[in-house]
Amino acid sequence: MKKITVLISIWLSAAAFFSCEKKTEAGSKPQAFDKEVQDLLKNMSLEEKAGQMTQIDIRNLLNNGYGNTDEKLDTARLKEAIQTYHVGSILNCIQAYTPEKWVELISQIQNEALQSPNKIPVLYGTDAMHGVGFIKDAVLFPHNIGMAASRNDQLVSQAAQVTSTEARSVGLTWNFAPVLDVGREPYWSRFEETFGEDVYITTQMGSAAVQMMEGSDLTSKTNIASCLKHFIGYSAPKNGIDRTQSHIPEIVLREYYLPPFREAINKGASSIMINSAEINGIPCHGNKWLLTDLLRTELGFTGMVVSDWEDVIRLHTWHKVAATPKEAVMMAVNAGVDMSMVPNDYSFPKYLVELVKEGKVSMARIDEAVGRILTLKIKLGLMKNPLPSIADVGVVGSDAHQQIALNAARESITLLKNDKNILPLAKDKKILLVGPAANSLSALHSSWSYTWQGSNESLYPETTKTIREALEASGNKANIRTNATTGFDDAANYDVSFIQKNTAGVDVIIVCVGEAAYAEQPGVIKDLNLPEAQKQLIVAAKKTGKPVIVCLVEGRPRLFPEEEALADAVIMCYRPGSKGADAFAEILYGDINPSGKLPFTYPRYDGDITTYDYKFKETEQQLKPGVSEFVAFNPQWPFGHGLSYTTFAYSNLNVNKSNFTKNDSVLVTVDISNTGARTGKIAVELYSRDHFASITPSERRLRKYTKIELKAGEKQTVSFTIKAADLQFVNKDLKTVTEAGAFDLMIGNLQTEIYFNE
Amino acid sequence: MKKITVLISIWLSAAAFFSCEKKTEAGSKPQAFDKEVQDLLKNMSLEEKAGQMTQIDIRNLLNNGYGNTDEKLDTARLKEAIQTYHVGSILNCIQAYTPEKWVELISQIQNEALQSPNKIPVLYGTDAMHGVGFIKDAVLFPHNIGMAASRNDQLVSQAAQVTSTEARSVGLTWNFAPVLDVGREPYWSRFEETFGEDVYITTQMGSAAVQMMEGSDLTSKTNIASCLKHFIGYSAPKNGIDRTQSHIPEIVLREYYLPPFREAINKGASSIMINSAEINGIPCHGNKWLLTDLLRTELGFTGMVVSDWEDVIRLHTWHKVAATPKEAVMMAVNAGVDMSMVPNDYSFPKYLVELVKEGKVSMARIDEAVGRILTLKIKLGLMKNPLPSIADVGVVGSDAHQQIALNAARESITLLKNDKNILPLAKDKKILLVGPAANSLSALHSSWSYTWQGSNESLYPETTKTIREALEASGNKANIRTNATTGFDDAANYDVSFIQKNTAGVDVIIVCVGEAAYAEQPGVIKDLNLPEAQKQLIVAAKKTGKPVIVCLVEGRPRLFPEEEALADAVIMCYRPGSKGADAFAEILYGDINPSGKLPFTYPRYDGDITTYDYKFKETEQQLKPGVSEFVAFNPQWPFGHGLSYTTFAYSNLNVNKSNFTKNDSVLVTVDISNTGARTGKIAVELYSRDHFASITPSERRLRKYTKIELKAGEKQTVSFTIKAADLQFVNKDLKTVTEAGAFDLMIGNLQTEIYFNE
Repeated sequence: MKKITVLISIWLSAAAFFSCEKKTEAGSKPQAFDKEVQDLLKNMSLEEKAGQMTQIDIRNLLNNGYGNTDEKLDTARLKEAIQTYHVGSILNCIQAYTPEKWVELISQIQNEALQSPNKIPVLYGTDAMHGVGFIKDAVLFPHNIGMAASRNDQLVSQAAQVTSTEARSVGLTWNFAPVLDVGREPYWSRFEETFGEDVYITTQMGSAAVQMMEGSDLTSKTNIASCLKHFIGYSAPKNGIDRTQSHIPEIVLREYYLPPFREAINKGASSIMINSAEINGIPCHGNKWLLTDLLRTELGFTGMVVSDWEDVIRLHTWHKVAATPKEAVMMAVNAGVDMSMVPNDYSFPKYLVELVKEGKVSMARIDEAVGRILTLKIKLGLMKNPLPSIADVGVVGSDAHQQIALNAARESITLLKNDKNILPLAKDKKILLVGPAANSLSALHSSWSYTWQGSNESLYPETTKTIREALEASGNKANIRTNATTGFDDAANYDVSFIQKNTAGVDVIIVCVGEAAYAEQPGVIKDLNLPEAQKQLIVAAKKTGKPVIVCLVEGRPRLFPEEEALADAVIMCYRPGSKGADAFAEILYGDINPSGKLPFTYPRYDGDITTYDYKFKETEQQLKPGVSEFVAFNPQWPFGHGLSYTTFAYSNLNVNKSNFTKNDSVLVTVDISNTGARTGKIAVELYSRDHFASITPSERRLRKYTKIELKAGEKQTVSFTIKAADLQFVNKDLKTVTEAGAFDLMIGNLQTEIYFNE
Repeated sequence: MKKITVLISIWLSAAAFFSCEKKTEAGSKPQAFDKEVQDLLKNMSLEEKAGQMTQIDIRNLLNNGYGNTDEKLDTARLKEAIQTYHVGSILNCIQAYTPEKWVELISQIQNEALQSPNKIPVLYGTDAMHGVGFIKDAVLFPHNIGMAASRNDQLVSQAAQVTSTEARSVGLTWNFAPVLDVGREPYWSRFEETFGEDVYITTQMGSAAVQMMEGSDLTSKTNIASCLKHFIGYSAPKNGIDRTQSHIPEIVLREYYLPPFREAINKGASSIMINSAEINGIPCHGNKWLLTDLLRTELGFTGMVVSDWEDVIRLHTWHKVAATPKEAVMMAVNAGVDMSMVPNDYSFPKYLVELVKEGKVSMARIDEAVGRILTLKIKLGLMKNPLPSIADVGVVGSDAHQQIALNAARESITLLKNDKNILPLAKDKKILLVGPAANSLSALHSSWSYTWQGSNESLYPETTKTIREALEASGNKANIRTNATTGFDDAANYDVSFIQKNTAGVDVIIVCVGEAAYAEQPGVIKDLNLPEAQKQLIVAAKKTGKPVIVCLVEGRPRLFPEEEALADAVIMCYRPGSKGADAFAEILYGDINPSGKLPFTYPRYDGDITTYDYKFKETEQQLKPGVSEFVAFNPQWPFGHGLSYTTFAYSNLNVNKSNFTKNDSVLVTVDISNTGARTGKIAVELYSRDHFASITPSERRLRKYTKIELKAGEKQTVSFTIKAADLQFVNKDLKTVTEAGAFDLMIGNLQTEIYFNE
């Protein structure tokens, strides 16, 4: 295999070489680097190497320094960073720059880097979580939670391609995405950045995004280096609060949290970012087992490991496992961190140089880390071609890109309730539109949208509409009565008297509730319930006697068990992005038939947060006679729930064989019919249930899904192939196995049984 | 050592012999049994042995069979159980029997057993969780959560002695207590049965109870066999619901859940009961690592392991790790279960006999299990003296026992708020008394009180008072205006109009809220918030302009963040037992000065359930500018909170040395002064904080506590000895270690630093 690789490498570009090299080198150590990298390492001083491992926030290099919004680089600060500290990587910005500004900034940075002894360009990293949120006028897609609702991997791929193309056009070559944390804790303030609670969806969609970003040639104008994050367990904070400790037994880690990372690594991810928090008492940034034994030796990852924001020093300041800042640097680098997102001082390279001189960090470890960083820069073609071109920036926010965002929003928005088919609305209906989300751009986008928090609406593109604007544009403005002003902070948006006084002639009331924009810690909440003032809007609307349509714009399920009963229809928008309001209007009026399915279990009560893939004993209904309290698995809406304006029927669930072994597979077929009066898309999902197993089996697990479109009256046969590996789980020896025995396969309301023989 | 043991055994009783034997045999295998046991094992058939391992619910042996309330044994059913199925153990009853009835029943059972070939008496088990709940007129103590609030281990010992004496007097020799599950999940419906969230309190109080129950001679009339439960992790259900799965990494298991069991085993516990649920995918009843490797080999436990209710078969029906009921029996017995609480059929011994004949369960394993069961029966003196005597039952509910219950309630009730020293109340104050807990006997007792659920008030002793009755008795009945009727189910208790109409001449309104009685699954809740109808009582009371005193009668913290602000005083009663209402009245009127301290963190919000011994990163305050949502470590009341009618001051926190090693210890002294005008008790607590450690250290851990009484103006010096072992934690290699370095020691508002050198 080695020989073939070498032969191929002569023909392919250097970038492709490393892409192939990765597979052959997996797990081997010490890591072998290309000659170009080896030569560079030989020529570099220890200080230069420590600098390569250092990532600095751009704000430190701006005029007037950190915290200002000046877009101009301070040339002295830039020179100091590059020539004195040899900084290898820079990240982010305060608020979105224009494409032209980005080209100018990055060109200035790279031109400075070209003045350095070894002419090593800077790797610029950005959080392009749902489109390139730090480019002005970039197109923003639904956040991952909405993409997961689409059950359409192709949309994820297309969005990744747009993101890569737009980022690359301005010289941003490294994306801190995708989030592969499985969203099993709805309290978590980054829930919207996840693909929801299911391992398989996260694995499929996460690796689809990685594959498209990385492509086959990272020098291409449509590719960008991905960064899997956050390795690992960040999405399971014990008390729900961002960056707090997780308790994750290894069997659970391997069953629920590891598969998306394993698959994305196999798909060629260039880098990985570490979870800021601790698992089981050990902060991930200081966990050598995690960063070396598991990630390198077992998963065979050969790319670059970067810390999250300030997390190296936080081994000292937060986690208190390092007695000094310098010990924190030693601990992180020796555990396996290749690059530190410092990001606001030059302490990291200073300590690192001292540690090497003191023999506390080996030169081999430094060369390994720097070798990986240089390898990525070479893969990206930065050595040969470090400068972005103003000629490329026309792709940003193009119509074609907008169309993909629109398609994604259309397929993600989820119709949760539609009593008496009140939806779709005829366009001549008189609407009373209220609520804090009705005229909020930022709520439709949330985190990583033109700023970190996404809440500065002055930075949003002119073309982006609020729900109010979209309804006024696509319906008839005269039919919309509203007092909706911008945002969740304006008390006017909670004015129930406006509802009471404005119902004359109104056919329907649309109440837009949910969550303001937030990212990370500022999105922490004290209660999963929808705030009372928002609940009261629904109550007030219902009291008028008019039909009530609740529109949810939110990054995680906010609970309203009593008020949900008052709604005639409920539409879940998630964070639908640049074209979200347009898609909402299309769905409301029936121009588009909704097809989203919940990618998480929408809890009814705070005290019953249970995922769809629960174990039997989590479901038992218990009644307290005479006391109106009970708990059962009785969510507000189950995982996979989502209505359509047409109806579908499943029939003829068949398997081509009932018994199979590890050497063959089962072909599962099912007929789906559109039994309604309209064209519609439907996600077809195949679940399995293990009858008995050495580890308590889940009641069901999603194993396959696909999405099809059917015209009214049309029938289609969908087929899935099930192999032993599709039914596997992690056993008590931490091995991934498929045990012999019976399995139920379930699609829609149908069920059949198959038997695996070892 | 062996020789000495044998010599002693000649002099001591057989029971004492086994007590000594236990220490020498710890960890050795196969387990050696006394000759009396060995001889019995030789004489017993396989069927007899399987029967010894079988425990049946008494209801199966009553006239008309299961489910009726007939107190008479059906002699044919009894004979069948003993002579045909060789049943070794019987448990429980439907509702409390009189002492005389118990003596009659147990005598009848033992007389039947004496007719069996080997004359092996029956071991009768009961859930005497806070006093002997299944004896009529038995005295009931505060549930463990209240005992923990007392911070008084002596009260725990005294309660255990009363429980043992009363149980033993009627022939009940085996108590399924204490609960050693650390209560770190307030949603859990058995939270009231725990000693709260702290590991050290649970360890100290749990082992105090065990030591007193077991004594030095189990044949004594004041001793009884204890049963530690539930091994292990039952108190950490993932979604808060009783008996659902836990995710507990081993390092967490060893740090927080194992210490109370380890200590109680060292104190001579006779038996242990298994957690019904699964941990990390493995049901505890089928977990050989847990029941054999950890429990036997590592902890050296030589007593008997009993299943919880029906949990052997549930390996098949619930957990689905056994494909058949018979496989479930094999799995449980081979994992280490000695006795199955079947409890409603004879399938267990039938399958077990088959399994032995098929070679799937070894005869050695059977002899080991039966040997332990017979050993316990001998220890208890049952072989020589199986029959209870009617002459002994006079101890049940004696005045002396009642006094201990009163003392316990007095020290457990916790004054959480007392604005402007509105409490204590003068006895001539006119009180308006309302709320569902105001006239409820059962809410004061809850689980395991004369029935399983504790809710049948007709079974409570005549002498037991409700809060209403206690206030009317100890104050002046004419001063109490109330509509309080029995219980949480009567809508009249939520009538806010009664409050509005009855304030004339009233000095203060007492609102008694909380929870109805419950046990296990029926106590499952959907939301930790206090139900809205109860909150509205507080709101209505506040609206009258009168001072509002909230009395909480509840087994776990129910949240009322908005309404708490409306209360002038809050008194937490927990489940205070037989004399709880009397103690409440004494505290309200100032006859007793309150001294309870919260044994758990009382959360403010559902979304911030965080224990006092949090890691640093769980505390960070985060604000969302412009949005009124924030989360910080900001509980309603912290762990250790509890007010007094006097004031105390701490001074002169000193250590006799700053540096110490594993060979010495630090003497910590502090002066406490009663700076107020009344005698009062105060729990003095010593906390430590590890500055830096290889596992992220907690912000603080409770290491020592004691309780003292001080007269007004009195000062006392309290001293604690701190050894290295007091500062230890479980490291990443799962070893319990104390690492060198600095530690803060904190008492009250004082702090000092010590240094441990390895």
